[in-house]
Amino acid sequence: MGRDERGVTPQGEDFSAWYNELVAKAQLVDRGPAKGTMVIRPYGYRLWELLQGELDRRIKDTGHENAYFPLLIPESYLRREAEHVEGFSPELAVVTHAGGKELEEPLIVRPTSETIIGEMMAKWVSSHRDLPLLLNQWANVVRWELRPRMFLRTTEFLWQEGHTAHADEADAMRETMLALDLYTEVARDIAALPVVPGEKTAGERFAGAVRTFTIEGMMRDGKALQAGTSHYMGTNFAKAFDIQYTSEAGRLELCHTTSWGMSTRMIGGVIMTHGDDKGLVLPPRLAPYQVVIVPIGRGGQGEQTLAAARDLAVRLKAVGVRAHVDDRPQLSPGFRFNDWELRGVPVRLELGPRDLESGSVVMVRRLGDEGKQTISLASAAEDMPAVLEAFQAFLLKRATDFRHAHTTTVDTWDSFTEAVTSGWASALHCGEPACENDIKAKSAATPRCVPLDAARETGSCVHCGAPSAYGKRVIFGRSY
Amino acid sequence: MGRDERGVTPQGEDFSAWYNELVAKAQLVDRGPAKGTMVIRPYGYRLWELLQGELDRRIKDTGHENAYFPLLIPESYLRREAEHVEGFSPELAVVTHAGGKELEEPLIVRPTSETIIGEMMAKWVSSHRDLPLLLNQWANVVRWELRPRMFLRTTEFLWQEGHTAHADEADAMRETMLALDLYTEVARDIAALPVVPGEKTAGERFAGAVRTFTIEGMMRDGKALQAGTSHYMGTNFAKAFDIQYTSEAGRLELCHTTSWGMSTRMIGGVIMTHGDDKGLVLPPRLAPYQVVIVPIGRGGQGEQTLAAARDLAVRLKAVGVRAHVDDRPQLSPGFRFNDWELRGVPVRLELGPRDLESGSVVMVRRLGDEGKQTISLASAAEDMPAVLEAFQAFLLKRATDFRHAHTTTVDTWDSFTEAVTSGWASALHCGEPACENDIKAKSAATPRCVPLDAARETGSCVHCGAPSAYGKRVIFGRSY
Repeated sequence: MGRDERGVTPQGEDFSAWYNELVAKAQLVDRGPAKGTMVIRPYGYRLWELLQGELDRRIKDTGHENAYFPLLIPESYLRREAEHVEGFSPELAVVTHAGGKELEEPLIVRPTSETIIGEMMAKWVSSHRDLPLLLNQWANVVRWELRPRMFLRTTEFLWQEGHTAHADEADAMRETMLALDLYTEVARDIAALPVVPGEKTAGERFAGAVRTFTIEGMMRDGKALQAGTSHYMGTNFAKAFDIQYTSEAGRLELCHTTSWGMSTRMIGGVIMTHGDDKGLVLPPRLAPYQVVIVPIGRGGQGEQTLAAARDLAVRLKAVGVRAHVDDRPQLSPGFRFNDWELRGVPVRLELGPRDLESGSVVMVRRLGDEGKQTISLASAAEDMPAVLEAFQAFLLKRATDFRHAHTTTVDTWDSFTEAVTSGWASALHCGEPACENDIKAKSAATPRCVPLDAARETGSCVHCGAPSAYGKRVIFGRSY
Repeated sequence: MGRDERGVTPQGEDFSAWYNELVAKAQLVDRGPAKGTMVIRPYGYRLWELLQGELDRRIKDTGHENAYFPLLIPESYLRREAEHVEGFSPELAVVTHAGGKELEEPLIVRPTSETIIGEMMAKWVSSHRDLPLLLNQWANVVRWELRPRMFLRTTEFLWQEGHTAHADEADAMRETMLALDLYTEVARDIAALPVVPGEKTAGERFAGAVRTFTIEGMMRDGKALQAGTSHYMGTNFAKAFDIQYTSEAGRLELCHTTSWGMSTRMIGGVIMTHGDDKGLVLPPRLAPYQVVIVPIGRGGQGEQTLAAARDLAVRLKAVGVRAHVDDRPQLSPGFRFNDWELRGVPVRLELGPRDLESGSVVMVRRLGDEGKQTISLASAAEDMPAVLEAFQAFLLKRATDFRHAHTTTVDTWDSFTEAVTSGWASALHCGEPACENDIKAKSAATPRCVPLDAARETGSCVHCGAPSAYGKRVIFGRSY
C-alpha cells in the first residue's frame, strides 16, 4: 500500500470527500449492508468507549442511574404523543413478522425511547417521594436515513438517552440545564470542542418538547454540528402516558419530564473540528493511542531500538499514558510516520540507533507545529502527561480561535449571506417561523441556537426588519 | 407497603414462582410491552454493568478489541450458512418496512452476528499478517421467545459476542478454549458460580458450529443453567462468507473462526444459585451495594446515627467498598432490614444510639449464618474488605458443596431418573442422538456437557447399554 492509497482529498478541495475518505482510511468505520448503517471498527469504537466513559461517570456522579428498556416498541405507543409521532414517522423501521408469524400489532425499532420509558415511569412513580426519577440508557437507535453520512447521519447509531421525571417545571428545567452543562463540559474538556450552548428556536425543537437546548460546534468548513441536545418536555409525555404523583398536599399532579442525548455523532464532530489534510487529529484525552513509538533501524540495531521502545512504552503506561509501539519493521519509517498522522495520534516518538546512543528520542506533535524536538529518553515518560495536556489545551484554543474568526456579527442581509458561506452569522431575528424558512430557502442557513451567554440586545430582524425576538442575537449557520 | 407485599413464595413450595416474584420485587426487572421483552431496572442493570466491567477487562487483556456491527442484517446473509439459518429461523424478528416504504429485501434484527461479522472479516482479512483477528461486541440481540422468563429467556437480551478468525484449526481451538476459560473465571471468581466447563454433545451444538463448549451452573432447584458458550466454527462461516487469507507460502487458505457469548442470562444464574426464601443473595464482587448502613433512632438520636452512618459510608468508600446509607426514617428498622435482605445486600450494618455510645456497630451477613456481630465502629471500614472477601468465598464454597451434594454418579437407569429429579446425573453414554432423545423424552434430562476435567472412563451407556462414547462420563440434568 503506497502513500497514494492512504492520502485523502485536501479539505480545501472537497471537504465532504476529505471526510468520507478519512473515516474509512483511518479505519474508524466501514459501511454496513443495510442502507445507511455503519460498522464501527475497533479504532473508532475505542474513541466511543473513551467518550462514553467520561460522560457515564459524570451522569452517575450527578445522581442518575443507568437502566435498559426494550428495543421494540408497540406502534400504538408512538401515536400517543401527537407531535412526537409526526416527527418520527418518516424515519421508522417496522417489525411486522416475528417468530414465523405476522404480528397483530407492528413493533417499531426504537428511534428514541420517550414513549416506552414514559409507560414505565407511570408504573414506577406514585408519590412525591419517588421524584425526581433520574434515568439514563446507553443504547442503539434506528432512524431510517436517506442521505447517510458516517457518524453524522446513520440509520443506526449509538447514544445515551437521559430520561427524568420531576415534581414541577422548576426542577425539570434545572435538570434540562444540568444535562446541557454535562455535554458542554465533556465536549470542551474531553473532545476539545468549544461548543456554544444555547436554545433552539421553535422550528428546530425536538418533536414533543416544550423547550430544546443544544450544543453547537463549528466544523473546519464553517458549518455547524449539533453535538448534543437536552429537552424540557413539560407535561406532554406525562399526559400521554399518565405519569402522575401524589404531592405532599395529597393532590394528584402530572410530572414534568426531560430527555437528553449525545451520540456517536460526536465522533464526527471531533474529526471535522480538529482534522487536517494529513488525516485525523485526536485530542489526547480521547485518543486510543496518545503516544506512538516508532523504532527505527535494521537487523541488530532494529532489535535494540525495538527493545528500548518497548521499555519506554512500559514506562509511559506506568504514568497513565496510552502508548503503542509500532512493531512493523517491514514498513519504512516514512510510511509509518504518515500512517500515524493519518490516524491522528497526538504525539509520535521516533527512536533510531543514534538517538539511543545519545539517550534521546525525537518527539513530534501531530500538528507538527513545534517541529521535531529532541528530548531525553530517560525523562520522556514522566514528561509526557504535561506534553499531552498542553496539546489538548492547544487544540481547544485553536478550535476556539477558529470559531471566533469564522463568526461574524451581522446587521445587513448582504453581510449575513456572505458570513454563512464560510462560517456563522450572529444576527438579530424576529423569531417568526415564516421568516426562518425564508432565510433557509435563500441562504441554506438555519438558526443554530440562541446562545445562553449572549449579551442582551434588541433591534430589527436581519432579514425582514421586524422587531427582534429573544432579547439577544441568534447564531445562524449551515449545518450537518 | 407491608411485609406481605414484599414476601416471596418459598423456594421449596414453587421455585419458579419464587424466581418470578423475586426478580420483580427486588426491582431487578419489569416486563416490557412486546412479548417476552424485559425492562432492566437500575438495580438489575448495575449488576450487569459490574459483570460487564469484569468480563470486558479480561477480554481486552487477552488481546481482543471491541467493535460494533449493525443491528439489521439482510435476510440473505443468514441463508448463506445452511445450519445456521435453520437453527435461527423460528426465532427471527423481521423488519419489512422502513422509511415509509416496503423494503426490497427484509432485514433481520440480529439474533447473533456471525453472518454480518463474517461478511466484514472477509473484507478486512487478506494476508496471514491480518490474523488472528480478535473482535468482541457488546450488543442487544433479538430471538422471539414464546415461553419467556426474565433474564433466562427473553425476546431481547444483552450480551457480548466474541468473533475471531485464525489461520488454522489449532489457533482457533486455542481461542475457543481461552474464551471458555474467561467465562469460567468470571463465573467462579466474580459471580461465585462453580460452573462446570465442558463440551456439548452433537445434538446440543450451536447452529453452524463444529464444536460447542459451555459452562454449566447448578441452580438451587437442581436444574442446570448454560451460562456461557464458546464455539469452534471450523471453516463453515469462512466458506459461506469467503473469509480467506494468503499464507506465508503464498497460498489462498480459508480462515478458521470462533464465536463465544455471555449474556444477561448470567444474572438469572446468580439469583438461582445464591438466593433464598428471604430474597436475593448477591456475591460481594457483583453487588451494587456491598454494605448497607441502617441508622436507627428517632428525633435527635436519629440525626446523630444518620450522621455517623454517613461518616462510616465515606470511610467505606475510601477503602473501595460500595456502601449505601438507608435514609428512610419513616420506615421501621425491621422493614428496612427485610428490604435489604430481599435485595441481597451482602452485609448490613445497624447503627443505633446505644451502638454509637459504645463506639460499635452491629454487623449481619446476608445469610445470617454468623448471627449478629458487634464490631468496632472505628475499624469497621478497614475491616470490611476482608469481611466481604470471606463472604464471597463462603458463597462459592456453599454453591460448590451444593453442586457436589446434588450430583450423583449413576450406572443404572433407575438411579439416573431419580438423580435428575433433584440434581445432575454423571453417567456413561453411547453418544447416539437417538438415545439422547429417548433419555430426554423419558426423563426431561439432556446431556449438559462432557466435562473437560473428568477422569477417563469407559463402559456401557446408562440408558441403552451400548458401549460408551467420549471416554468419560457425561453430565445430564434438567435445564433452563
